[in-house]
Amino acid sequence: MSVPTGQASADPGELTWHAAWLPPEAFRALGSRDVLVHGGGPLVDTVLDEVTRACARYGGRVWHSPPWDVDADLVLASRDDGPVANAAAEAARLRATPAVDGVGNGSLGDEGFLLARVNGVTVVLADAPAGLLYGLFHVVRLGAAAFDDDRPARRHQPALARRMLDHWDNVAVHPVSGQIERGYAGGSIFWRDGAARRDPARLRDYGRLLAACGVNAISVNNVNVHDTEARLLTDRLDDVAEIADVLRPYGVRVHLAVTFAAPVVLGGLPTADPLDDRVRAWWVAATQRVYQRIPDFGGYLVKADSEGRPGPFTYGRDHAEGANLLADALAPHGGVVRWRAFVYNHHQDWRDRSTDRARAAHDHFTPLDGRFRDNVILQVKFGPVDFQVREPVSPVIAAMPATRVAVELQVTQEYTGQQRHVCHLGPWWAEVLRFPPWGEGGATVADVVAGDAGGGLVAVANVGDDPFWTGHPLAQANLYAFGRLAWDPRLDPGAILDEWIELTWLPTTTGDPELVRRTLHEIMDDSWRTYERYTAPLGVGFMVRPGHHYGPDVDGYEYTAWGTYHFADRDGVGVDRTRATGTGFTGQYPKPWSDVYESLERCPDELLLFFHHVPYRHVLHSGRTVIQHIYDTHFAGVEEVAAMRRRWQALAGAVAPAAYERVAERLDEQFRSAVEWRDQVNTYFFRKSGVPDAHGRRIH
Amino acid sequence: MSVPTGQASADPGELTWHAAWLPPEAFRALGSRDVLVHGGGPLVDTVLDEVTRACARYGGRVWHSPPWDVDADLVLASRDDGPVANAAAEAARLRATPAVDGVGNGSLGDEGFLLARVNGVTVVLADAPAGLLYGLFHVVRLGAAAFDDDRPARRHQPALARRMLDHWDNVAVHPVSGQIERGYAGGSIFWRDGAARRDPARLRDYGRLLAACGVNAISVNNVNVHDTEARLLTDRLDDVAEIADVLRPYGVRVHLAVTFAAPVVLGGLPTADPLDDRVRAWWVAATQRVYQRIPDFGGYLVKADSEGRPGPFTYGRDHAEGANLLADALAPHGGVVRWRAFVYNHHQDWRDRSTDRARAAHDHFTPLDGRFRDNVILQVKFGPVDFQVREPVSPVIAAMPATRVAVELQVTQEYTGQQRHVCHLGPWWAEVLRFPPWGEGGATVADVVAGDAGGGLVAVANVGDDPFWTGHPLAQANLYAFGRLAWDPRLDPGAILDEWIELTWLPTTTGDPELVRRTLHEIMDDSWRTYERYTAPLGVGFMVRPGHHYGPDVDGYEYTAWGTYHFADRDGVGVDRTRATGTGFTGQYPKPWSDVYESLERCPDELLLFFHHVPYRHVLHSGRTVIQHIYDTHFAGVEEVAAMRRRWQALAGAVAPAAYERVAERLDEQFRSAVEWRDQVNTYFFRKSGVPDAHGRRIH
Repeated sequence: MSVPTGQASADPGELTWHAAWLPPEAFRALGSRDVLVHGGGPLVDTVLDEVTRACARYGGRVWHSPPWDVDADLVLASRDDGPVANAAAEAARLRATPAVDGVGNGSLGDEGFLLARVNGVTVVLADAPAGLLYGLFHVVRLGAAAFDDDRPARRHQPALARRMLDHWDNVAVHPVSGQIERGYAGGSIFWRDGAARRDPARLRDYGRLLAACGVNAISVNNVNVHDTEARLLTDRLDDVAEIADVLRPYGVRVHLAVTFAAPVVLGGLPTADPLDDRVRAWWVAATQRVYQRIPDFGGYLVKADSEGRPGPFTYGRDHAEGANLLADALAPHGGVVRWRAFVYNHHQDWRDRSTDRARAAHDHFTPLDGRFRDNVILQVKFGPVDFQVREPVSPVIAAMPATRVAVELQVTQEYTGQQRHVCHLGPWWAEVLRFPPWGEGGATVADVVAGDAGGGLVAVANVGDDPFWTGHPLAQANLYAFGRLAWDPRLDPGAILDEWIELTWLPTTTGDPELVRRTLHEIMDDSWRTYERYTAPLGVGFMVRPGHHYGPDVDGYEYTAWGTYHFADRDGVGVDRTRATGTGFTGQYPKPWSDVYESLERCPDELLLFFHHVPYRHVLHSGRTVIQHIYDTHFAGVEEVAAMRRRWQALAGAVAPAAYERVAERLDEQFRSAVEWRDQVNTYFFRKSGVPDAHGRRIH
Repeated sequence: MSVPTGQASADPGELTWHAAWLPPEAFRALGSRDVLVHGGGPLVDTVLDEVTRACARYGGRVWHSPPWDVDADLVLASRDDGPVANAAAEAARLRATPAVDGVGNGSLGDEGFLLARVNGVTVVLADAPAGLLYGLFHVVRLGAAAFDDDRPARRHQPALARRMLDHWDNVAVHPVSGQIERGYAGGSIFWRDGAARRDPARLRDYGRLLAACGVNAISVNNVNVHDTEARLLTDRLDDVAEIADVLRPYGVRVHLAVTFAAPVVLGGLPTADPLDDRVRAWWVAATQRVYQRIPDFGGYLVKADSEGRPGPFTYGRDHAEGANLLADALAPHGGVVRWRAFVYNHHQDWRDRSTDRARAAHDHFTPLDGRFRDNVILQVKFGPVDFQVREPVSPVIAAMPATRVAVELQVTQEYTGQQRHVCHLGPWWAEVLRFPPWGEGGATVADVVAGDAGGGLVAVANVGDDPFWTGHPLAQANLYAFGRLAWDPRLDPGAILDEWIELTWLPTTTGDPELVRRTLHEIMDDSWRTYERYTAPLGVGFMVRPGHHYGPDVDGYEYTAWGTYHFADRDGVGVDRTRATGTGFTGQYPKPWSDVYESLERCPDELLLFFHHVPYRHVLHSGRTVIQHIYDTHFAGVEEVAAMRRRWQALAGAVAPAAYERVAERLDEQFRSAVEWRDQVNTYFFRKSGVPDAHGRRIH
């Protein structure tokens, strides 16, 4: 039985780390009760640990063995570990019967739980230990409300079976991408300077945080698999197994990013051709060794034929042949291949206006629909380009009915302020998940990826060894929101944020809790739209400094090979992706979107420049011209950041000093950077268009 | 007596290096003669070595001891080593008397020599050994012509006493700037991975090349002095002494770049304040130790208060106080301080149009004129900004009559193609050296820096451990031209190039020598102007990718803190540096240039955008509009590179294969890059101006 070391705290010093949404104080309501825990196995042990620690702190009591008829305030019971516990669970279910009638019927699945309040007892029932763990953290989230008598009974099951974080962590520090590619929170919690860190206390706390927001899978290394990292599959497998051992009690399955060239670089074969028998045999044997060591290993994650990574194209094979090779090796063990659809020509000629990077994933993958094995998950970025602050939803999601598709988000804020800017992404992801690819009223993106048949949701992680986990303390909320939305995409992002505030900030505040809550909402609720306002306008994307992608550079990618252009000239701006006169990308969507996006009149304002090249004086649905919209939003965005900064000052003394200072310092940088964005974008477009600001504000 | 190992060759394999302008074959005329060498000491030993090796190869004979009345074809005599040699020299002078009458009178100085042909004997006389060495290499340059009977007697003395190369080599590989900052020819010949390389054979050959083109001083480490390099002054001094020992026989004095913070970082003092007695004492003692170890040490090179380097400003002192501190420590030993005038605000706000980086050196330093010690040399970049392909001459050069000024060039091609492009800079430097700061007919830049009273010429070196020394084999010519122009700024750059071709390529050609000569001239003569044509237009500068400075990025520096802007908008382009409406920079020049540059009508076309912001349809002296000039020169520049590439193909089989291939591959890259420059610059200005090309050529 492993016990977290408790180094986490609300105000981390040098040797500890922030408790995030699991401060001990969040367990107060639970810890002051009498609690009965039924069940066995490592995950139930985790539940028992949590309850025991909480009760030790707040004076409650814990039972975990017969007799079962104690007078508990809270019963947590799992049914899957033999007759004794099952009997206990049945007894608990019996007690709860009046309340759960019609709710408690049918299987709760591997991760579901039932929560009811019956005769003064709060009951959590699960069919499997993971469900009990999620039920426990739900009780923590509810706090005192979990013990309200008017609480209706309710079944809780994750809408998405697969809720994963991809860590782009390198084992060896990479000369360009560092310890974590696109990492903005210090070093890796897994690796340091070429070796495993072996910091189980921190890993355990990470596992707790993941379980408490609903994440059930991670991959532990960068999709750009370099030499050292390739060997995690073979002679460095023990390092992976150790991570799996620590995270297993939190219901988190470990995956590995592998290089498609592994049979060559690790196996010494002359080829990695997926149709070569030696290659197939190599993968079968390598995968067997992985499962011998890690029986619940999740599977492989592969970035192939993308941005210089090796892949099946080298051998004249397609991506179905490539993915199926690994799928066949994994299938006997219940593992999956996560195959990234992020394949495009990154040596594009900027002069060639007919090539469109947005088209690439659809062009590459839809012809392969139906040819992937059942245990292949095609991992598709939510938008057609690359994790921008605004993009349309990728047309690939709607285009592969016979393929298991996962949608990929980016929790790490590569293009959204790099955890120096407050940019709460919950609202953006909720919008993506609720988007109806076949039109209003139809199935949503979340429906496509839901359940066992769907590929689920996956995100690039934003965590490092920073004391606050995420660099910017408020960036924790993105990780939390990701997990919660993956569990239930219908959740209101504002309510998720409120949960996070309630858990993370309110239990330890030394000021007025309502002030803290209100202030954080004011700062964070609309922060994604604020970020959008002062950066690239109207869906056109990029305009960032090449390489590190921080800060403005309007023409930074305009004449490069990366396929990310805005085509601004003295007359207008935007990318013509219509069928009529452009790249035809709109034709990759089913109706009604193929028509909506094609139409200059119907295209939503916020995506206008993604789909159309328009004159600066084109009038938006908002009634403003494009150029005036650019000026107005950029001035407004900076004002909003200034307001954030003022608002935060109200929390001095009300939140832990280290967190206060960290946020204050980041807000200063956000303000500086937002001013830079405003001035560069406005100046750029003023110099190009010659149109003065209607309000006569200063443009340089 | 040290003998070069002779690893140099015309076609370097993996373990050797290219002979550059000293292939053994260049010594044929000399080596087949009977040669008398008079004199002693290490530099005369060097002369004797060279002659002995040449004669061993080509059947000549060498005498270096009495009797002196042998029937020699060539007499090389130095007078400075006692009665015997002086007697011999007098005998030689006597023989030469008829020819040298009126020429041989007066001292030849430390480095001068007299060359005469008398009664079938070629005589080289020098007052000091260095002169004999330069005389020897002059004879090599002349080849068979040195033995023509109609050769008139002539005195040769360097116009500039100080002819120096600054190596921006790091001892330890720097995470950003690498082993050599702005180095494009592999690793350092001095340092590797944090330690001295100890490759005396290569260093000796470097010394030979320097002596053979006239360079007499180097600094051995980067002006950005990092931690490891700082210690060259103290506990790593032996490494410097070893380099000095190898280069001394070639007349090259070694200098060291030092950090102004040395008393703190090396001496453990709490301050580096130049007026603090402990600081003064520290520098005195440190400098004494340097001279104990290296008696002919040249002095210190300092970049202070520039781009983040420490300097006297930290202590509220000015640069005269800073430089004089080091000058006082060096003076008793005959050393000099080279103090860089490259001081400007590199945190400039791009929105602030009143600040002008071009003004900075003049603003900072001219108030200090007269306050520097005699052994301070103020090292001024040739232009007011930063080694661009075209800039006006720096106004500082004319503004400090009471200060010893050196002019700094950049042989390493940071902004001129990084030794992947052919860009022969001799014509550009000749133009700079002949520029008359006070008007036509007056003194020139070369006059300002000439003689013992002048600071001379200095350049950032372009040499590394590449087999061809300079990456691009044709970039050797820039190093050669630098040395020759520093010796005699009146030399015709075309003639210097011809010398270099004659020495480097013709002795080993396996084809038609005249084809080789003509082809190299065709490729190289105008290559600087070709480079200018396809890069930033009309003196406006930059437009390079930030950081590495290679390839186009028109707006790359437009919104940065570096002070290098072009201010292009839809109406026009250029920097208004006039007194009437701009930054007033033109006022830093004396007449007539202050008026010429101020005047839109009189300003030379090639500097128009450096001094004026003009509409795209402004008509140049050439009769073309600015915008049409941009289009025309960019199309022409690419055509010229295409022609270079075609011409080079004619030399397949005529020059050594390794050199042929290396040049061919670089020309391919130059062509690719030139096309990129053309298309990005033309597209950028077409998108901004909306003005179509008058000739209807394709602009993207």
